[in-house]
Amino acid sequence: MENSTLIKLRRERGTDRSESDADPRPARVAGVTDRPARRGRPGHDVEAVLTAAVRLFNERGYDFTSMFDIAEALGITKSSVYHHISGKEQLLQIAMDRALDGLFEAADEVKALDAPAIERLEQLIRRSVLVLTDRLEFVTLLLRVRGNTAVEQRALLRRRDFDARVTELVRQARSEGDIRPDVDPATAARLLFGMVNSLTEWYRPSRGGAEKLADTVTALAFEGLRTRPENAPPTTRQE
Amino acid sequence: MENSTLIKLRRERGTDRSESDADPRPARVAGVTDRPARRGRPGHDVEAVLTAAVRLFNERGYDFTSMFDIAEALGITKSSVYHHISGKEQLLQIAMDRALDGLFEAADEVKALDAPAIERLEQLIRRSVLVLTDRLEFVTLLLRVRGNTAVEQRALLRRRDFDARVTELVRQARSEGDIRPDVDPATAARLLFGMVNSLTEWYRPSRGGAEKLADTVTALAFEGLRTRPENAPPTTRQE
Repeated sequence: MENSTLIKLRRERGTDRSESDADPRPARVAGVTDRPARRGRPGHDVEAVLTAAVRLFNERGYDFTSMFDIAEALGITKSSVYHHISGKEQLLQIAMDRALDGLFEAADEVKALDAPAIERLEQLIRRSVLVLTDRLEFVTLLLRVRGNTAVEQRALLRRRDFDARVTELVRQARSEGDIRPDVDPATAARLLFGMVNSLTEWYRPSRGGAEKLADTVTALAFEGLRTRPENAPPTTRQE
Repeated sequence: MENSTLIKLRRERGTDRSESDADPRPARVAGVTDRPARRGRPGHDVEAVLTAAVRLFNERGYDFTSMFDIAEALGITKSSVYHHISGKEQLLQIAMDRALDGLFEAADEVKALDAPAIERLEQLIRRSVLVLTDRLEFVTLLLRVRGNTAVEQRALLRRRDFDARVTELVRQARSEGDIRPDVDPATAARLLFGMVNSLTEWYRPSRGGAEKLADTVTALAFEGLRTRPENAPPTTRQE
């Protein structure tokens, strides 16, 4: 996630009318080559535009970030950005998918496991922590959208689908007798993901230890903080 | 928190230059009388201004809400708002204190308890849930400030103080042998409040059940979701 490498970018040939407005500061995002000749590797450039855009969306809010701001952050012209991307909404769409696809892949993986619901739920929480640490800026953005655009509406719908799958897993684990009967499945699902999602507020990739963090989250969620008298794994465990 | 009662407000006598711009819609916030004659109960009016302001700050962001927007939401003139409040920053200050004072009162109360650290920690989590459900809009705003102004900086410092107190309680409970030794106190404190703070995302006062919710949060945090073989309260409990 760090972009300590500042690279001087070669300016677009003078075909862009906003060339003269271009910010003379060196680009703050590495990886953009901004050369029309390099059409052979467009993915690389889209990735750099996406990284810069998502960072700005998180800092200033999607509504208050323009394509010009994104171009400026990259040290390239606005038309160069449009060379890679149809507009702000497409960037948001890619970012939302990046976050949500990760979570749904995790949900699909645990669905395929031949294990009791409590184990699948625990695996889902663990994998979700890893998705968040890996795609932190994308998930941060996902958690901030409020449904102001069609893309945001769609992201909120997918989030709701995901929540429903978590709730269903909690319900199943409870009916299998592995989750305390006094807990409401929807509330438990919200609290579990309240804990997981809080990572976007305080986790920093530089701290590392994503696996250890996933251990801590699942330990807290499933066994609780209190020392158990027996200090042994619970008897229902089947792994 | 509900303001379903729409009240028609008597318009200010024509002393305000912006009178002609006034929004003809009925006021959306109950409790503002907007009569200079009622100086005897200024607190009541400040409260209504505060309620409207905090709602707007949460909806649009503090930076994107003007005193005019607040006046408009109340169906009164901007100068009427200034009659009660020195400006936007004062409203933010009162709101931050409302949230933080609640949390610090809870911390002070549990500090005074003659009980093991684990019990004080559990009480603090429980009481924090009740503060959040009771002062939902204020805490929501608190969790969104990013330190752009002096007031926000001060709120962030107080939040950090509070977090340090939670971390210290976890550390103490761990050294008393009541919290699993493999858990890092700062991480546990963040996850606990990640769970508590998530209420601002999904709790609605109309749902009620704040006490039951506090039970669920503490049960999840301290005993975990898994059914315990013994199904009995842990042996370290002293209440």
